[in-house]
Amino acid sequence: MIYFDHSSTTSVRPEVRRVYSQMLENQYGNADSLHTLGRNVHQLMEKSRENIANMLKVLPSEIIFTGCASESNSLAIIGYALANKHRGNHILVSNVEHPSVTNSVEFLKQFGFEIEYLPINERGIITPELVQSRMRKDTILVSTMHVNNEMGAINPIQEISKVVHRNPTCAYHVDCVQSFTKIDVPFHCIDLATISAHKIHGLKGSALLMKKKNIQLMPLIQGGQQEQGLRGGTENAPANIALAKTIRLALEEQAVVYDKVSKINQYLREEISKIPGSHINSKEEALPYILNISFDAITSEVLLNALDQKGICVSAKSTCSSHQRNYSSTLVAMGYSEKIATHMIRLSFGKDNTMKEAQTFIEACKEIINNYGLSL
Amino acid sequence: MIYFDHSSTTSVRPEVRRVYSQMLENQYGNADSLHTLGRNVHQLMEKSRENIANMLKVLPSEIIFTGCASESNSLAIIGYALANKHRGNHILVSNVEHPSVTNSVEFLKQFGFEIEYLPINERGIITPELVQSRMRKDTILVSTMHVNNEMGAINPIQEISKVVHRNPTCAYHVDCVQSFTKIDVPFHCIDLATISAHKIHGLKGSALLMKKKNIQLMPLIQGGQQEQGLRGGTENAPANIALAKTIRLALEEQAVVYDKVSKINQYLREEISKIPGSHINSKEEALPYILNISFDAITSEVLLNALDQKGICVSAKSTCSSHQRNYSSTLVAMGYSEKIATHMIRLSFGKDNTMKEAQTFIEACKEIINNYGLSL
Repeated sequence: MIYFDHSSTTSVRPEVRRVYSQMLENQYGNADSLHTLGRNVHQLMEKSRENIANMLKVLPSEIIFTGCASESNSLAIIGYALANKHRGNHILVSNVEHPSVTNSVEFLKQFGFEIEYLPINERGIITPELVQSRMRKDTILVSTMHVNNEMGAINPIQEISKVVHRNPTCAYHVDCVQSFTKIDVPFHCIDLATISAHKIHGLKGSALLMKKKNIQLMPLIQGGQQEQGLRGGTENAPANIALAKTIRLALEEQAVVYDKVSKINQYLREEISKIPGSHINSKEEALPYILNISFDAITSEVLLNALDQKGICVSAKSTCSSHQRNYSSTLVAMGYSEKIATHMIRLSFGKDNTMKEAQTFIEACKEIINNYGLSL
Repeated sequence: MIYFDHSSTTSVRPEVRRVYSQMLENQYGNADSLHTLGRNVHQLMEKSRENIANMLKVLPSEIIFTGCASESNSLAIIGYALANKHRGNHILVSNVEHPSVTNSVEFLKQFGFEIEYLPINERGIITPELVQSRMRKDTILVSTMHVNNEMGAINPIQEISKVVHRNPTCAYHVDCVQSFTKIDVPFHCIDLATISAHKIHGLKGSALLMKKKNIQLMPLIQGGQQEQGLRGGTENAPANIALAKTIRLALEEQAVVYDKVSKINQYLREEISKIPGSHINSKEEALPYILNISFDAITSEVLLNALDQKGICVSAKSTCSSHQRNYSSTLVAMGYSEKIATHMIRLSFGKDNTMKEAQTFIEACKEIINNYGLSL
């Protein structure tokens, strides 16, 4: 099998599986229990929180463990807005966010919040100038993804952050799910950052929200004293401890994998360009882990299924809305034609992909277009 | 080690660990992906949902997988209230609920909901008559736990349900975390039921909300199409599949373990009664899995720590609020004195406990009271 769908999810590293299994076997205590079994788990988990904080260069108290990145996004946006509505009710958000962000701001409308969508430009990004032009005195939150999940476009986080923070009562939330451990995330200039484990060879059901200490949140998952009262539920200590391992291993390999993936990306760009009627939709400056392409001769669905039959996994659009019959909103927002959008597939690479796999993919595409493609 | 703290959390069954590990190793696909890897995971997960539904005698579409019971409680209460506020704004809830329930209703106050707390009686339960007397035309939701986590008191769910459903626009939510797989839960007469995996020898970070098909909810964790749009986030398919196994094994053993635990409970009641200044706080009719006791001669904290040094794990109050310096609200609500409440410990039993452990516990208590107890 050739797996070019790492932006959807990734395999779990054996080292991560091992840590998790050991925890399940030996450390099943409740981290809130006052007996030794519980206290041991608590200590291991807090050590992991500290390690993660050090890797992100933030404080341990700025790490909130959650159950998934969608929860982190929901908590960041809804939790922040509800806790800060006395400051204003205007929220800026890009028009190509993950549904967990878009639906969070839409959810807030019933409570009187005004949501303004920022259009990405033709390069797929939000410019600081655009944010500047839309900022108001009552803007309390700006939310943009770091890297776009369909195109790999990289938003200029530091520059946007400067604009956002000219308003001292405005916070900046960044969904870093597709960027973290692939490129450096400037956590120092972000107030709320979402990170997922299963996108970086960790466990599903494991994520975190980085929340700077001066930021007030209202919890969404209500409960006891866990996570400073910001996220109820018995702590999933085994998963949280495995997350520290997941992050460490991914950061250690960041440079090497980036280089490897860049070469695969470059090779594919060159070879795909040679196929008649092909389009490379991801811009040259995009994150090399994501490559969005189209062929005039074949629709997304047919190509995806034909590749699948050859054991090659790709996506036709972001996975979280894969069962809905519409086309990529990001491509359309970037000004691509409806045809390109309905013919696009997304390749997303990972640490275990090889150049050989890229070659096999090119051969497969040629064969599929030859067999099933419309004559142009 | 003697583990008498099963109401806090439980060890993970080897069979559950095995299923989960196999999933992690072989089925890491995203259940929403359209390629074979994703579709296989999707099928396995939907089969598990069906199996769980059959065991609960509800429909597969009535099972919503969540990340923890606190999430299930929050979704049930906040999600239901926000989706049904056009019907009324009055909510009834018992005064000894888990913090995830209490804080959920408190959260709703900011949106104009009126919360009325129902006091438990001296047996630790909510009577149907009390619910009846407080029901109003604008009551949209009643929430009571099935079994109290500190005392083991069993609420008369079927009788309360009848009262609640005399109002056709009122729903009944039951937190079944402490009852499910210990006694039969009458799911047929409940609209929303919370179940946790880690209390029944399953994984942390795994739970579900049973929601009847006619019940409308607003999602809290926003996201894509997952869980019928009611719970965003990439499905934790490995955990959800492990949950089906967890439930099946626990239900299969329900009768045998109940019998075993009942004998341990009975033995302890008899032996503890013989110790001077002892109090059995859990009523005779309580769930035998939970035994709440006090000794006049020794406070909760001292006894818990002394037992811990002998390798015996118990709780001094519900674990989710263990780090707060106050005493059991349930005991006080039942009319016990402050002294009893500050001297209480909770024993909670599980499938692997033995009569021998119960004997060791009695000896340990006698020794500790002898060494550290106040002379009465």
